[in-house]
Amino acid sequence: MVILTKTVEFSTSGSGDMVEITDKVQLGITESNMKNGVAVIFCPGSTGAVSTVEYEPGLKKDIPKAMQRLAPYGDDYAHHDTWDDDNGSGHVQATIIGPSLTVPFTDRKLTLGRWQQVVFIECDTRARERKLIVQILGE
Amino acid sequence: MVILTKTVEFSTSGSGDMVEITDKVQLGITESNMKNGVAVIFCPGSTGAVSTVEYEPGLKKDIPKAMQRLAPYGDDYAHHDTWDDDNGSGHVQATIIGPSLTVPFTDRKLTLGRWQQVVFIECDTRARERKLIVQILGE
Amino acid sequence: MVILTKTVEFSTSGSGDMVEITDKVQLGITESNMKNGVAVIFCPGSTGAVSTVEYEPGLKKDIPKAMQRLAPYGDDYAHHDTWDDDNGSGHVQATIIGPSLTVPFTDRKLTLGRWQQVVFIECDTRARERKLIVQILGE
Repeated sequence: MVILTKTVEFSTSGSGDMVEITDKVQLGITESNMKNGVAVIFCPGSTGAVSTVEYEPGLKKDIPKAMQRLAPYGDDYAHHDTWDDDNGSGHVQATIIGPSLTVPFTDRKLTLGRWQQVVFIECDTRARERKLIVQILGE
Repeated sequence: MVILTKTVEFSTSGSGDMVEITDKVQLGITESNMKNGVAVIFCPGSTGAVSTVEYEPGLKKDIPKAMQRLAPYGDDYAHHDTWDDDNGSGHVQATIIGPSLTVPFTDRKLTLGRWQQVVFIECDTRARERKLIVQILGE
Repeated sequence: MVILTKTVEFSTSGSGDMVEITDKVQLGITESNMKNGVAVIFCPGSTGAVSTVEYEPGLKKDIPKAMQRLAPYGDDYAHHDTWDDDNGSGHVQATIIGPSLTVPFTDRKLTLGRWQQVVFIECDTRARERKLIVQILGE
């Protein structure tokens, strides 16, 4: 088995911003020279989520709307009493969507659908600098 | 390490249809002759999700109702403006539930609970032919 | 490759109880003597979920509130007709949040953020004894 860990860094514009990272994950696989295995994409932070989406302008508006339904920004959050913060909604959204995604690859290529991209979903209320972990296990 | 990739194919009847695939995943483990490891079940498409459920007739009605709460079919979706499509709700549901599931196996058996099954959840609004990736890593 | 499987056991107090298990997962990695790899944390049951959260008293109240929005306890569930049970809400919540979490580790340490902990989220309506599977794959 070979294990390769890389990081992917980018900036986000705040709540609901979706950043596509498919090419960076695929590049890690290509560089690793592994043929088959899995890529684990993980957000080391409690206000960010990782999933897949058809990355097009419409869904970039629709997903944030649904996140507001999961945990509206304007609600009262006990989290705000702990830290005098305003991002309780983002913590709740991130926990439900999840910080981790595992995608198999075969013949050196991610097994994504044609209209399916890997995205980081910013759940925090403010713009952030993010650094994701991409760990590739295979042979 | 051994890596085995197989595909699981089936038809769905449209939004909220849950298809149980536990036996097919277990069969892959049995055929692989691996003793311990993980099975990664992945949907290569942006309108399908993978999770576990107690697969019984009641929850086959309850889960689709909750999916409608996450992203109601009748809402306005910017995604529809992009493609003149009607499945924005399904894209949103699939991104939130997630396209990937990882289940450990030990002694050649999935570590599922007695009342827990692996399911594909159709989020698209229409009936679809689906092909999932099941990748088994272990030894 | 090395594969190590351990179990983590604890009691919960019922719906919305979050139990932090970060140290137990990290201990498994330390004991395994592996340097790099992934920890898969899996709930073998259909009314429990695994994710990450900033584990502080505020969010321990906020997350359960959002779970009630996903699937309110007081709604009608067809699941209750199947078993004369009262935990349909918990099944729905667990399927949406998901039973599985995969966290990479590097240099013998989980790649979690500073304010990010691994938690089991009890979705069942009653107090439960839980036994999670933690499977560590790496080298």
